[in-house]
Amino acid sequence: MTYQRPNRAANQLRDVQITPNFLPHADGSVLIACGNTKIICTATIDEAVPPFLRGKGEGWVTAEYGMLPASTQSRMKREAAAGKQSGRTQEIQRLIGRSLRACVDMKKLGERQILIDCDVIQADGGTRTASITGAFVALKIAIHKMLADGRLAENPLTGSVAAVSVGVVGGVPLLDLDYPEDSGCDSDVNLVMLNAEKIIEIQGTAEGAAFSMAELAELIALGQKGIAALTVLQEKVFQAA
Amino acid sequence: MTYQRPNRAANQLRDVQITPNFLPHADGSVLIACGNTKIICTATIDEAVPPFLRGKGEGWVTAEYGMLPASTQSRMKREAAAGKQSGRTQEIQRLIGRSLRACVDMKKLGERQILIDCDVIQADGGTRTASITGAFVALKIAIHKMLADGRLAENPLTGSVAAVSVGVVGGVPLLDLDYPEDSGCDSDVNLVMLNAEKIIEIQGTAEGAAFSMAELAELIALGQKGIAALTVLQEKVFQAA
Amino acid sequence: MTYQRPNRAANQLRDVQITPNFLPHADGSVLIACGNTKIICTATIDEAVPPFLRGKGEGWVTAEYGMLPASTQSRMKREAAAGKQSGRTQEIQRLIGRSLRACVDMKKLGERQILIDCDVIQADGGTRTASITGAFVALKIAIHKMLADGRLAENPLTGSVAAVSVGVVGGVPLLDLDYPEDSGCDSDVNLVMLNAEKIIEIQGTAEGAAFSMAELAELIALGQKGIAALTVLQEKVFQAA
Amino acid sequence: MTYQRPNRAANQLRDVQITPNFLPHADGSVLIACGNTKIICTATIDEAVPPFLRGKGEGWVTAEYGMLPASTQSRMKREAAAGKQSGRTQEIQRLIGRSLRACVDMKKLGERQILIDCDVIQADGGTRTASITGAFVALKIAIHKMLADGRLAENPLTGSVAAVSVGVVGGVPLLDLDYPEDSGCDSDVNLVMLNAEKIIEIQGTAEGAAFSMAELAELIALGQKGIAALTVLQEKVFQAA
Amino acid sequence: MTYQRPNRAANQLRDVQITPNFLPHADGSVLIACGNTKIICTATIDEAVPPFLRGKGEGWVTAEYGMLPASTQSRMKREAAAGKQSGRTQEIQRLIGRSLRACVDMKKLGERQILIDCDVIQADGGTRTASITGAFVALKIAIHKMLADGRLAENPLTGSVAAVSVGVVGGVPLLDLDYPEDSGCDSDVNLVMLNAEKIIEIQGTAEGAAFSMAELAELIALGQKGIAALTVLQEKVFQAA
Amino acid sequence: MTYQRPNRAANQLRDVQITPNFLPHADGSVLIACGNTKIICTATIDEAVPPFLRGKGEGWVTAEYGMLPASTQSRMKREAAAGKQSGRTQEIQRLIGRSLRACVDMKKLGERQILIDCDVIQADGGTRTASITGAFVALKIAIHKMLADGRLAENPLTGSVAAVSVGVVGGVPLLDLDYPEDSGCDSDVNLVMLNAEKIIEIQGTAEGAAFSMAELAELIALGQKGIAALTVLQEKVFQAA
Repeated sequence: MTYQRPNRAANQLRDVQITPNFLPHADGSVLIACGNTKIICTATIDEAVPPFLRGKGEGWVTAEYGMLPASTQSRMKREAAAGKQSGRTQEIQRLIGRSLRACVDMKKLGERQILIDCDVIQADGGTRTASITGAFVALKIAIHKMLADGRLAENPLTGSVAAVSVGVVGGVPLLDLDYPEDSGCDSDVNLVMLNAEKIIEIQGTAEGAAFSMAELAELIALGQKGIAALTVLQEKVFQAA
Repeated sequence: MTYQRPNRAANQLRDVQITPNFLPHADGSVLIACGNTKIICTATIDEAVPPFLRGKGEGWVTAEYGMLPASTQSRMKREAAAGKQSGRTQEIQRLIGRSLRACVDMKKLGERQILIDCDVIQADGGTRTASITGAFVALKIAIHKMLADGRLAENPLTGSVAAVSVGVVGGVPLLDLDYPEDSGCDSDVNLVMLNAEKIIEIQGTAEGAAFSMAELAELIALGQKGIAALTVLQEKVFQAA
Repeated sequence: MTYQRPNRAANQLRDVQITPNFLPHADGSVLIACGNTKIICTATIDEAVPPFLRGKGEGWVTAEYGMLPASTQSRMKREAAAGKQSGRTQEIQRLIGRSLRACVDMKKLGERQILIDCDVIQADGGTRTASITGAFVALKIAIHKMLADGRLAENPLTGSVAAVSVGVVGGVPLLDLDYPEDSGCDSDVNLVMLNAEKIIEIQGTAEGAAFSMAELAELIALGQKGIAALTVLQEKVFQAA
Repeated sequence: MTYQRPNRAANQLRDVQITPNFLPHADGSVLIACGNTKIICTATIDEAVPPFLRGKGEGWVTAEYGMLPASTQSRMKREAAAGKQSGRTQEIQRLIGRSLRACVDMKKLGERQILIDCDVIQADGGTRTASITGAFVALKIAIHKMLADGRLAENPLTGSVAAVSVGVVGGVPLLDLDYPEDSGCDSDVNLVMLNAEKIIEIQGTAEGAAFSMAELAELIALGQKGIAALTVLQEKVFQAA
Repeated sequence: MTYQRPNRAANQLRDVQITPNFLPHADGSVLIACGNTKIICTATIDEAVPPFLRGKGEGWVTAEYGMLPASTQSRMKREAAAGKQSGRTQEIQRLIGRSLRACVDMKKLGERQILIDCDVIQADGGTRTASITGAFVALKIAIHKMLADGRLAENPLTGSVAAVSVGVVGGVPLLDLDYPEDSGCDSDVNLVMLNAEKIIEIQGTAEGAAFSMAELAELIALGQKGIAALTVLQEKVFQAA
Repeated sequence: MTYQRPNRAANQLRDVQITPNFLPHADGSVLIACGNTKIICTATIDEAVPPFLRGKGEGWVTAEYGMLPASTQSRMKREAAAGKQSGRTQEIQRLIGRSLRACVDMKKLGERQILIDCDVIQADGGTRTASITGAFVALKIAIHKMLADGRLAENPLTGSVAAVSVGVVGGVPLLDLDYPEDSGCDSDVNLVMLNAEKIIEIQGTAEGAAFSMAELAELIALGQKGIAALTVLQEKVFQAA
């Protein structure tokens, strides 16, 4: 028997809300809510670059990710108290950083760094993809702040980045898995696209059953539709900000 | 020339809003906003106690505190990435834990632990006192959940705990300092009271000028009025939760 | 002008040699050499499982990864001296562990753990995929040791796992990138397959240019051919061991 | 029934001995013994300041605190072996540093740092207040060394700092609690004063019973008398040094 | 020109004083002063053994070593603040532990552990050898406490352990080097003996010039005389304790 | 009854093979096999010196040591995952560094550092001495590379360094202990010599029975013969490299 998704269609995103300028101190910030997943994404401009880039006239974008201890169903240990970030945390923040660097012309950004922080307030699946989708808007706000105040002469953004998860649950391909779906899925693919057209990052894992090229293609097509909708929303929120 | 406080009286609290049940997974939770200071406080019930209490039939309340990197005016380093909590963080979380233990009868709580998390979303002074005021409501919600589901037969709460900062700025005693006031103050006192009547914790520091017993008494009286107002609000929020 | 690969065809693997039983103390071990990339992979049987699995009657497979400081072109810092594993190391060892768990029936393995160690002696690109390919053989040797000595009644292996990298360099899709190719590639996909038929893990990153679904499909087809050849070699080495 | 203090009056300090120049290598040093509490306090002049003060022409005073493992009744874990300082240690060393900075004119000190070390050899209550009282003498010796050798033209000390604990035990207000009294007290106040006149730091905690403003005033008055006696002793020891 | 030792003969120990029962809380303790080197050595009985010895009916002796930051001529970093023990510290505490285990019959000690702490108050060369010499007395006091209270039926001590450094400075073999001699020596040998007769540990390093077997024999003979004198003193102090 | 060594004479080394230029990226490298002990030793030239030597015109040689987790009979914990190097590791790498510095004229080396890495692939006793013997050849290769390319005008090597272990097992003095012999020995001496003539380092430990000066002399004579043979081999390998 196949899985029947409650409350929404298999190819439907959860309700997505992006609140721009959520934190007053950051150069760019949003609160992104994808269903019950809620994440604060901020962009902070740092006029210094990491040592390996000094004097090269190029910029950098990097990201950090964290979860509030009470964001998950059973409380997570606080990483600051444990004294280190988990492998999962590091993997996610490396993914966010790489994804956002893919839409920035580092020469045009100039010798400065943008620090992205994604802090999960509430977790219900898809936190890494929602982080990327939200962080892109925070990044765009921060970059337009620099265009407005004259620090940047030219826009270094080369496109729009958004991300979504897709997966097969009980034999059914689904868009935008929530936590119960993610926990019980056969396979799980995180997809990051540029302009909702081309792939920047794809990370697919067979949790239960290995999958074929054809199944992967179907999942990617499903994800691309979700990303197209997210890209439209990102632009609308940015224009309203 | 003495300091003229903009927008509110010297003996006036900032606008305070406490939103109960802010996070669905925690046993008790609030978002507390004191002016531009915003903190998520949660209480998580853990049916195990720390090793030093095992088998003694008594409970425990402990707290952890953190700040989002973008919560402050210039971005703070993420403690999880730095690999340790700062001395300031540890001092604050020890204060929160001690303050809340002062209103709990550990025998009545029984052999279980309540973990308090206070995570600062936005910082504008007074984060440690707002954490205590908010965390008390989260704690009370969690305890009443256990009274409701029968895990607790008797209410272990022995009173109500709230906290506020007071200080002297430019010669003027002020209630509830914001960040600019706190940065430039002569002296700064954090006050935690039980039932707005008696002192549980007092931490006073002469930042600029040492102070006399009489000055301290004036600040405590000022703080007590603020705490009385916060205590009324805590009860109103709890009743509405 | 397109990239001309020196010394081998675009769809050709580097010379691969797998030396079984390389270390006498491990339950299973190989030295795998893929061109100038050389890795010692070992499997150690531990009759205890991690805490989250105790008493469930199921086993576990987990992996650790390291590089000798002198394995890379410019000496890497020793992670043990630095006091922590890098994000890249953690990401790779999580990938190796997940990939190998995909071919093991944990109920049949029983309540024991197999620890995989992949230590890079010499690095010239493709260390994570070569680690997986080599570690599968070490794992198989260790499992057959338990089948031979009666600890296992039934073979818990559900198939064969191998991995390879594919990527686009100078516009040309290439199989099995070496380090210079990997450093300058447009896109880079690590592919892990079960029985050279279905995908267990796919991790694709656009380093230079985002890629389409069609380009991805071409790369996966290229990778599948390489994995088919590796799978044959793994079996031959195992039979000879 | 009220508590009967053995061997000394409720308003009496323990025997206090301060041995100046206890360690030959430090710029200033004392051994302070308050009853069975014994602490080595040293001051080391460092001609560099921390990064946040470089180039500002101002100095700094900071403190570190430690306990020998065998200083306590049941052996404490060595913090160096544990790999981190406890929250209690950090709280105490922050208090010592803040207290001593309150009597130093940082402009007159000039761009140099004084490092205070307080190492507890034997602990019987009141280690943080004895550390402050002893460290002030070590600091004064170090400063007068710089006045003598011409590094300082003007004395940066603006007064004298000493500290004592007061508390209520079994209903009785007591001066200078020893360890058994401290363990069983209703409330515990650490008081740091400038010139035995004005308060620099006050940290009061209701361990058993919350206390009123009137009770706090009584404790502060009790503490002030103890601090007055300690201040006289500090000066006598300094003159003799 | 050869080195002329000031104030004592080449084959003369510095003044040595061992004060027993220096700390009241430890099961055994001494303050040992060898010239200007001063170390507190304590022995704490722990009725539990480390995991690798549980249930074997055998005991263990282990040691920790530390230096007060102000013990050295230029202040050392506090290891607890740095977050780890240096390689030198670990090497020394391993040496102390091994040396003392050499005179204890672990079966007779029974399933308990003796923790040795050596904390250097003042350093002027030879801290590791003075630690061993002092710690042996502390250990003996702790063991005789257990013989007195009936926890031990039979004395597990199989002999007496003492240590000294010897070295060649400016061509002259010297006994018991102080810090200036140790810093400028050609070679440096730390010698630990049982009953002043046989070698338990020897650690010799050519700092300036490699040395022959004959030179080593001369240094060992010199050291043995010093150890004989220390062994007599240890016994005298123990008898008086 | 005395111990009968299987397969080789008491005064015989294990088979030793040194393979030069084992890793292509290092400036100097060997694989050394002493029986079943196998270690990769590399030397990397770093044109910077540690801070304490900057601007002094002198060079430095330092060493790091590690073991593959599967190198030992029962798998060792990976130190990078544990987050720190053990005391044993630090002691060994300090010994290797000291031993090699004894044959280098630091003025002639000039202001650069040579980093030695010794990574144990397979452990069967004597890893620290084999590390020194192998690392000397790697160091010599690296130095001659600098002599060849003109970075060095004069050879800074002042001699040849090799090391071996000797010990007493079952009453019999033995050269070059393997792991079973080392585990059960009465005493164990690690000997490092310059030109097989003079002692650079000696570290002797009585594991079971304390030893006399005469016994030590016999062991050193035995070790010296082994070192003489190793020194000849080192030179032969270097000439062939």
